[in-house]
Amino acid sequence: MFAPRIDRLTSSLVRDILALATQPGMISFAGGLPAEEGLFKPQDAGIDLNALPDTLWQYGMSEGEPALREWVAQRACAMGLACSSKQVLILNGSQQGIDLVAKLLVEEGDRVLVESPAYLAALQVFRLFGAQMHGIRQDNDGTLPAALESAPNARFVYLTPTFQNPTGRCTSLRRRAELAEICDQRQLPVFEDDPYRDLSFDAPAPAPLVSRLKSARWIYQGSFSKTLAPGLRLGYLIAHPDFYPALVKLKQAADLHTNRLSQFIVLQALQRGLIEPHVARNLPIYRERRDAMQAALQQHLSGKADWTVPSGGLFFWLHLREKIDGMALLHAALARGLVFMPGDTFFAGEPEYPALRLNFSHSSPDEIRRGVAILADLLNTIRVVPDFSCASEVDKLAQ
Amino acid sequence: MFAPRIDRLTSSLVRDILALATQPGMISFAGGLPAEEGLFKPQDAGIDLNALPDTLWQYGMSEGEPALREWVAQRACAMGLACSSKQVLILNGSQQGIDLVAKLLVEEGDRVLVESPAYLAALQVFRLFGAQMHGIRQDNDGTLPAALESAPNARFVYLTPTFQNPTGRCTSLRRRAELAEICDQRQLPVFEDDPYRDLSFDAPAPAPLVSRLKSARWIYQGSFSKTLAPGLRLGYLIAHPDFYPALVKLKQAADLHTNRLSQFIVLQALQRGLIEPHVARNLPIYRERRDAMQAALQQHLSGKADWTVPSGGLFFWLHLREKIDGMALLHAALARGLVFMPGDTFFAGEPEYPALRLNFSHSSPDEIRRGVAILADLLNTIRVVPDFSCASEVDKLAQ
Repeated sequence: MFAPRIDRLTSSLVRDILALATQPGMISFAGGLPAEEGLFKPQDAGIDLNALPDTLWQYGMSEGEPALREWVAQRACAMGLACSSKQVLILNGSQQGIDLVAKLLVEEGDRVLVESPAYLAALQVFRLFGAQMHGIRQDNDGTLPAALESAPNARFVYLTPTFQNPTGRCTSLRRRAELAEICDQRQLPVFEDDPYRDLSFDAPAPAPLVSRLKSARWIYQGSFSKTLAPGLRLGYLIAHPDFYPALVKLKQAADLHTNRLSQFIVLQALQRGLIEPHVARNLPIYRERRDAMQAALQQHLSGKADWTVPSGGLFFWLHLREKIDGMALLHAALARGLVFMPGDTFFAGEPEYPALRLNFSHSSPDEIRRGVAILADLLNTIRVVPDFSCASEVDKLAQ
Repeated sequence: MFAPRIDRLTSSLVRDILALATQPGMISFAGGLPAEEGLFKPQDAGIDLNALPDTLWQYGMSEGEPALREWVAQRACAMGLACSSKQVLILNGSQQGIDLVAKLLVEEGDRVLVESPAYLAALQVFRLFGAQMHGIRQDNDGTLPAALESAPNARFVYLTPTFQNPTGRCTSLRRRAELAEICDQRQLPVFEDDPYRDLSFDAPAPAPLVSRLKSARWIYQGSFSKTLAPGLRLGYLIAHPDFYPALVKLKQAADLHTNRLSQFIVLQALQRGLIEPHVARNLPIYRERRDAMQAALQQHLSGKADWTVPSGGLFFWLHLREKIDGMALLHAALARGLVFMPGDTFFAGEPEYPALRLNFSHSSPDEIRRGVAILADLLNTIRVVPDFSCASEVDKLAQ
């Protein structure tokens, strides 16, 4: 009945987990939602939405609003990525960039290099388009150069070196340069996904990895979902001139162009210099939550798991010392009012090790403390249940 | 460098023509833009955009806002399409529905039945996904039942029976029933695209074709671009229960969910009953422009072309009596300040006959009269230029 690619659509498990996360009373470490307190509300920031320009209601350009593209290019240049506004494409959120890049570069059976672990909704899209994914191992500084160097030929490598989802790792400038050099040598195109850059708690994030490339082609993408508001659905990509024209045509075929109201709001926020102070007001909220989770993990999970303290982004990544059935653990947690993401789904192939992803941005410090205590309690009691049918149990609970 | 599908992306010709259409002083019959005077501006309609709900800025549901899905389902039921809100998916404009349906059903080499001629941006997407398209002939009542009956097996048939783009034809209730019966007999899924339904100048449009189906699977889609404003990028699809779950997952993979501001605005317009009076105020503008084009065509083009007067939608479709190089005609027209769409691009394969598509909604009656006079003048003088390189000439002009 369906195209064969539909068989490769990931099961509804992740969707079910995220649906459960919104149930009243549930402590959710599951999603990647910004703090409610930190959402940008244009009316509160003095943007008069009743004064929208009349031209906004007609069809717009597939590339995006020219003034917004100009701002995006200027900001990219300021962080070290030399580009012009002619390389900027405004997206309906940066998830859309993953769809467009997959269309551009992935034919069924093509190899794609991904981090191991990697952002799961990117894995989902690459898989949908039939990619054979090859995971590149990481250490605490991100992707391992030797692993990238020895990886098989591929259409491109997908990297999120800045506060990676799910690990929270931020790759150093030196490592970025090494990785870029390997990509140049191999002429391996780089797709860098960078939605968390501005949520940097300790120091400014290093310049994008693709800014170090000399000859390899690249696509870089960013988002206003984490700095302003996800409901706007506004992201952008900046592409090597060889890639840009086809990406615009793919965008046009996908949905003609991005919503012009959101483009207007973000442009206003940029023109008035509202984004930096907004982010600066939010960072203490994020820091407090990160620190609360770090303290709770130290108190309850030392000896059971290893992790690094993320210096930005939204997640802790727990590398569990004992093998455990993550789905059985999730099942038990749900019964106790806690939800999180089992680590297995973030690996393109067989999971390298047992892990959990814990989001800290969307829960209060008190919820974080209670949630981590529940988690620790469960890790003390849960054992592997070999024939446990996880998906069906979660489905049952989801009903 | 690219996935092979990129070779199937239509040339930039159509994009160039549409870009030329926005040049100052140009009379444009090229695009499918609603009248500027008829765009819905929420602030003028009493919707206070500074009072947007706080919840709007967070991530939303892939399916769309529940209240909006409910309204869409109720309106569909009222026009004869039995469905529930659980079958409704809110889209970033109905162009997105074409992308999602192609992903759902089209694998490279699969056959898809399309009208001959058909909406060109749908042909573009089906081609991108590698469809082998088979054109079904039409008469003035739309798709010919005998042609559909004898068409080869296919994954689905794409139909726009209501004020079709490009022909403007509206298929009668009786013909719809005949076509639906054939689809039932063949168990041929139907993808009905219905963006122009509300722009009906003479009488209410017949119920959707898919509402006549008894057993064949179907997807129906509509848009708020033509009734309210394209800049909102808001459309929806309603799908047979067998198709719906995979379409939601595809939407999630494509861009997580649709912009929540636009969903809020359209929901407000629906709840306050603003859409019907807005459309009623617009219809006289559209009728006047349609009548102006009909009068000008009768005056200048009788004997040179055949056409029917569209009872809705945005287009006249001129079937030219003499073979002419449409691109050479366009080239000469551009030099005289007129732009339109040559008919060839609307045919999936070899053009059946020489034709032009003329949009009447976005020009004033005076511009329409002047534009048709220029067109008639050119048709009197232009002859086929066999080795004329159209694309490069248009590219030159576009610079």
